[in-house]
Amino acid sequence: MTVDLYFTSNEVREEELDKKTVLVIDVLRASTTIAYALHNGCKDIIPLSSIDKAIELFRKIGRESALLCGEREGKKIEGFDLGNSPFEYAEEKIKDKTLIFATTNGSRAIVKGSSTLSLIVGGFVNFQSTFEYLSSSLNELVIICSGKLDQFAMEDAVCGGLYINEFLKKGDCHLNDGAFAAQKLYEVYQDDFLGMLRNSSHGKYLIELGFERDLYLCSELNSLEVVPILSQGRLVRYGENNS
Amino acid sequence: MTVDLYFTSNEVREEELDKKTVLVIDVLRASTTIAYALHNGCKDIIPLSSIDKAIELFRKIGRESALLCGEREGKKIEGFDLGNSPFEYAEEKIKDKTLIFATTNGSRAIVKGSSTLSLIVGGFVNFQSTFEYLSSSLNELVIICSGKLDQFAMEDAVCGGLYINEFLKKGDCHLNDGAFAAQKLYEVYQDDFLGMLRNSSHGKYLIELGFERDLYLCSELNSLEVVPILSQGRLVRYGENNS
Repeated sequence: MTVDLYFTSNEVREEELDKKTVLVIDVLRASTTIAYALHNGCKDIIPLSSIDKAIELFRKIGRESALLCGEREGKKIEGFDLGNSPFEYAEEKIKDKTLIFATTNGSRAIVKGSSTLSLIVGGFVNFQSTFEYLSSSLNELVIICSGKLDQFAMEDAVCGGLYINEFLKKGDCHLNDGAFAAQKLYEVYQDDFLGMLRNSSHGKYLIELGFERDLYLCSELNSLEVVPILSQGRLVRYGENNS
Repeated sequence: MTVDLYFTSNEVREEELDKKTVLVIDVLRASTTIAYALHNGCKDIIPLSSIDKAIELFRKIGRESALLCGEREGKKIEGFDLGNSPFEYAEEKIKDKTLIFATTNGSRAIVKGSSTLSLIVGGFVNFQSTFEYLSSSLNELVIICSGKLDQFAMEDAVCGGLYINEFLKKGDCHLNDGAFAAQKLYEVYQDDFLGMLRNSSHGKYLIELGFERDLYLCSELNSLEVVPILSQGRLVRYGENNS
């Protein structure tokens, strides 16, 4: 098995994605929010790379069936329905809705990886179920860590390293330098994901903004079983009439 | 003290360099080659980001006082005098010459960082002398790892981590996520730089190209005492009428 891991979506060259399975990781917080939103019953999630595109699509779909979601600098975008905290995505708000989703890092990484064979979104909260999906795939794997504003983010690297670590237990893997490094960083922080999040640059910033409780939720291993998979430009729950 | 480390020059935002001291690392091989070239008596080195710019400047300066140096995909550029192996930069070839230097990763990282207060180039071979230079500076430090083709390279991360590790011994440092990660990766590989180079993606590629002995040279800690510093667009030896 081959696993290549990149620390930012800028590192990814489109031609390297050809016929690969892609895992996008944005622990703080798009991966976690997407997993909670699908778990809590939204119909689907359309990730978009810009605010303008999100607003345009929202006008087309209409308020009855869609919600406009996203953040810039960690805060809800003005005029949007929801930000990027998983706590905002409760069942009563999002049930059966299409979420138009424009976050700074995660949405862009998903769009970047969307040209490939199959793409799923993973984090600590849905690690086990996404790992099982990837293990059953015969394809080469590319892990795209979303990072923060095109820079390395520790939390995505450590989460990526958790996947690599489990793949190595199953047998030989061919890893690129990023995958090697991520696995080593996972070893360092494996016993304290929450502490790692609290000390990360992004984690500290979210605490300043008042989102400290998000860090607890985002660091919980295997609290959900959902596998968000991209199908015709929309993230849906894997296994429900779509794959 | 504040130390920010970036794994590729693409991660660096120009505004974050303002009034900082910059250390550029490209262990395989521009850092090492630049250190050897200055140690072996070249007059100065002009790093350029493209082959065209290098050729244009070479025509202006002329063959009597300059040499055209650089690589693409690890190999000497056709028509150029020297490639990017430190072994090519022997005293009899380069003494008193201006080296016009266009490598894929290192030259670009230097050009990217060149707008700042002061910029030096470091690697394993000249670690101690460059660390002393940086320790005597009161500025905030930015470490730019050149990486490989805009992707993470283990060897630059580990070398960057060596600097961070020494700074931490001297007292408290404020580190960004990249600097934290690099220090952890240094701890993993600190007893075997050569083994780490041999297992790195770039190291394996250079072995394939026949440059295995370069890896030995590039992994030798403190074999040189030179501090390459940028002065008016040219890398020169620190301490010689220039600073």
